[in-house]
Amino acid sequence: MTSIWFLLLHLYYPLFIVVDALEKVSSNGDEEAGAAGGVAAVEHNEMSNLHFDNRSHSFQFLEFDWHHVSTPCIAAFWILLASVSKIGFQKCKNICGVFPDCALLIVVGLIVGFVLYKMNFEYASHSLDSQFFFLYLLSPIIFGAGYFMPNRTFFDNLGSIVVFTMVGVLWSTFAIGISLWLIGRTGIFTAEIPLLHVLLFSSLISATDPVAVISLFDEIHVNKLLFTTVFAESLLNDAISVVLFRLFKSFLPIGIENMRPMDCAAGFLSFFVVALGGVLIGVIWAAIVGFMTRHSKEVDVVRPVFVFVLPYCAYLAAEMTGLSAIIALVVCGIAMKPYVKLNIPASTMNSIKYFVKVLAEISEAVIFLFLGLSAIRRHQWDFAFILLTIIFCVVYRTIGMIIPAYFLNKFRLVPYSKVDQFVLAYSGNRGPIAFGLVIGLPDSIPAKDLFITATIAMIYFSVILQVSIK
Amino acid sequence: MTSIWFLLLHLYYPLFIVVDALEKVSSNGDEEAGAAGGVAAVEHNEMSNLHFDNRSHSFQFLEFDWHHVSTPCIAAFWILLASVSKIGFQKCKNICGVFPDCALLIVVGLIVGFVLYKMNFEYASHSLDSQFFFLYLLSPIIFGAGYFMPNRTFFDNLGSIVVFTMVGVLWSTFAIGISLWLIGRTGIFTAEIPLLHVLLFSSLISATDPVAVISLFDEIHVNKLLFTTVFAESLLNDAISVVLFRLFKSFLPIGIENMRPMDCAAGFLSFFVVALGGVLIGVIWAAIVGFMTRHSKEVDVVRPVFVFVLPYCAYLAAEMTGLSAIIALVVCGIAMKPYVKLNIPASTMNSIKYFVKVLAEISEAVIFLFLGLSAIRRHQWDFAFILLTIIFCVVYRTIGMIIPAYFLNKFRLVPYSKVDQFVLAYSGNRGPIAFGLVIGLPDSIPAKDLFITATIAMIYFSVILQVSIK
Repeated sequence: MTSIWFLLLHLYYPLFIVVDALEKVSSNGDEEAGAAGGVAAVEHNEMSNLHFDNRSHSFQFLEFDWHHVSTPCIAAFWILLASVSKIGFQKCKNICGVFPDCALLIVVGLIVGFVLYKMNFEYASHSLDSQFFFLYLLSPIIFGAGYFMPNRTFFDNLGSIVVFTMVGVLWSTFAIGISLWLIGRTGIFTAEIPLLHVLLFSSLISATDPVAVISLFDEIHVNKLLFTTVFAESLLNDAISVVLFRLFKSFLPIGIENMRPMDCAAGFLSFFVVALGGVLIGVIWAAIVGFMTRHSKEVDVVRPVFVFVLPYCAYLAAEMTGLSAIIALVVCGIAMKPYVKLNIPASTMNSIKYFVKVLAEISEAVIFLFLGLSAIRRHQWDFAFILLTIIFCVVYRTIGMIIPAYFLNKFRLVPYSKVDQFVLAYSGNRGPIAFGLVIGLPDSIPAKDLFITATIAMIYFSVILQVSIK
Repeated sequence: MTSIWFLLLHLYYPLFIVVDALEKVSSNGDEEAGAAGGVAAVEHNEMSNLHFDNRSHSFQFLEFDWHHVSTPCIAAFWILLASVSKIGFQKCKNICGVFPDCALLIVVGLIVGFVLYKMNFEYASHSLDSQFFFLYLLSPIIFGAGYFMPNRTFFDNLGSIVVFTMVGVLWSTFAIGISLWLIGRTGIFTAEIPLLHVLLFSSLISATDPVAVISLFDEIHVNKLLFTTVFAESLLNDAISVVLFRLFKSFLPIGIENMRPMDCAAGFLSFFVVALGGVLIGVIWAAIVGFMTRHSKEVDVVRPVFVFVLPYCAYLAAEMTGLSAIIALVVCGIAMKPYVKLNIPASTMNSIKYFVKVLAEISEAVIFLFLGLSAIRRHQWDFAFILLTIIFCVVYRTIGMIIPAYFLNKFRLVPYSKVDQFVLAYSGNRGPIAFGLVIGLPDSIPAKDLFITATIAMIYFSVILQVSIK
């Protein structure tokens, strides 16, 4: 009995895929004609519609319109696959228990990606799109993280966190970038990559990833101080990472030789604009959440709308203006918590908290699934480059954590122990955000494919590292 | 203090709009060039990108990228507007208390629509799209309705409900269609409308609307029997309505003169295929929900996924195959309830129920908002046609309820009283589903604009009727 349902569930999607593939083949002719010109294409489509209408003279009992429902169907498929996989991992705990969930999800994604690839599926239809990732998948995770962040520990250690962030990312970016470029000049890479391109790459690979850190700390259990430090650092990292990435991207058309001192000064200043702007947006929207939830006493059903949609507006507002969306969302989550607790009754709040958790965990699972899926693509292998990237990431991360920790310990009431420092250095996991950034690189960069391959390799290495830590 | 936040909240969207309008103006040139041809357009865009990059030589502090975030921003805006409106109505209870919420939401929609119209906004950017309505907005409402349907009362009265549905809709469709067509032949309408087009229109205007019925019974409180009868009838109506609508639509290219008896027989048979097929899909997916929730004990966060996403899959599967999606979703909701109650702990279940309610009520509010908004459009006024449509709808609904009730009462244990019959006749509200269908009509129908205007008029009349019933 149960196996029948399983069969049904798993036979469903391939059915869609086959129909989709057939439709694609049959519409190829249309598309070619459509490429000739806009107006002509419209006329052609109308013609083919009429043609179709004339052909189907008798009443049809069942129609089969996959394109009508394709978007929500595909979304439902990934969400269900992630959920079913999560249950499967729990059921096979004796086999899967050794590996973290995120590693297993990547493997499931790899398998599905391989099957789709063998079925000659178009890569674009099932890969992770940069915009989709940042707008929809990332925000529930970050919001959940901000909302459940222990406020007190965060503010007590803000100083250390900011030092780790600033020193860590800046140091890593320039150390990795310049090291790779210098070694590249010896000619051991397959192609010479300009300094600016290498710096662009190192800016996105240097930041530790909040998503990876969350999934790591779900597996290993550390003290609150360590968790808050690493996690808050990975969140603030984003501001630096985004600025550096945008800075180098805006220098691309200028060229490093035409850079003026003004540009560098502006770049440096923009760190503060991006970070503090994100904080400001977060605080403003948190105040709006407080105000709206206070006035929602009579209408019980609108409360979750304010708790979910208003922080998301903070995220969108920051994303739109180029400020740090992650900082805005985290700050909004932290700042709104006391108001929300006062304004919303406990029973409703429990439901809301539960759904914050559900959305965050499902988004995380889907992201790791896509991370496996998207790896099945045209790669540009350059083992020297990839290996050196991984080595530099680990080495410079360790240096960038231990030296600040040494100086910070002179001022701290509770110093970071040797074990803490080890965890700090090893928890520099790279994750989905780096992948989201690297696939959003302009196509004009010749080494884009190599950068994508190296990023995927680095992320997979992080996941393997997680297993060994565990 | 409070007024500042209100200002902020309300100034935000117009800001986006202005930016959007400016971008539209500036991109007009691009679009015109783009229409010339596909490949050329791509090249042109790349050229203009390069041009832009060369122009912005220095580092920009803030960017303003509205198009990047426009889709989620617009969605967030409508959800927030609906929520804030709902709170506003509660706050001004002394003024707004007389009117039902849905009427007030339509008025808010009308005002916003008028403002957007005056700002020369493109109609398509803020009107309700047929596909969007059926795929995303309608399903949470129908699912909530099915899930909270009192099972016992529903099955006890299934016979009466089916009789009311079959007789009611078939009678209304043909009575309204043929009456309008016959009167049309006298020449009092602005244009003569072919019989098939009138029947197409009458098939979509004849069914009572579950969304309208829910919002009506939120205002007036009737006994369980009456609620279940009217509500279940409005749900089953959909199957008939969809079949008639598709039937007449498929006859359009054939023409009424070329119809064969076979087509009519197939049409009649397809009622049962569409309805029973919907039931089957609902039952299958409910069994999957039961199976999956039973095996989700270890992973708490995936439960809501199964409760929400699997019934939605039933809806999509029915929608894809042309079966009755509404019946599939309602049946799935009814059939899964006992399993879900057993498999999911009460605390989690309370959270899920709360979110079912939240999603349903917010979708409903957004739909009525859009119903107001979409009314601001190019109308084709034909007062005779519109007035007669409304009169026929009311008169034939009354006849189509009172005569079956008379015969049913001879067999029923609990007969329908005179008051019950009055409520049955008067609760034949038309609502958003009719609007969703009418805007999905093919553009080849010359009277499409007239049909849209008449549908909007009929829906508004239903809302006014609600006020008078109240």
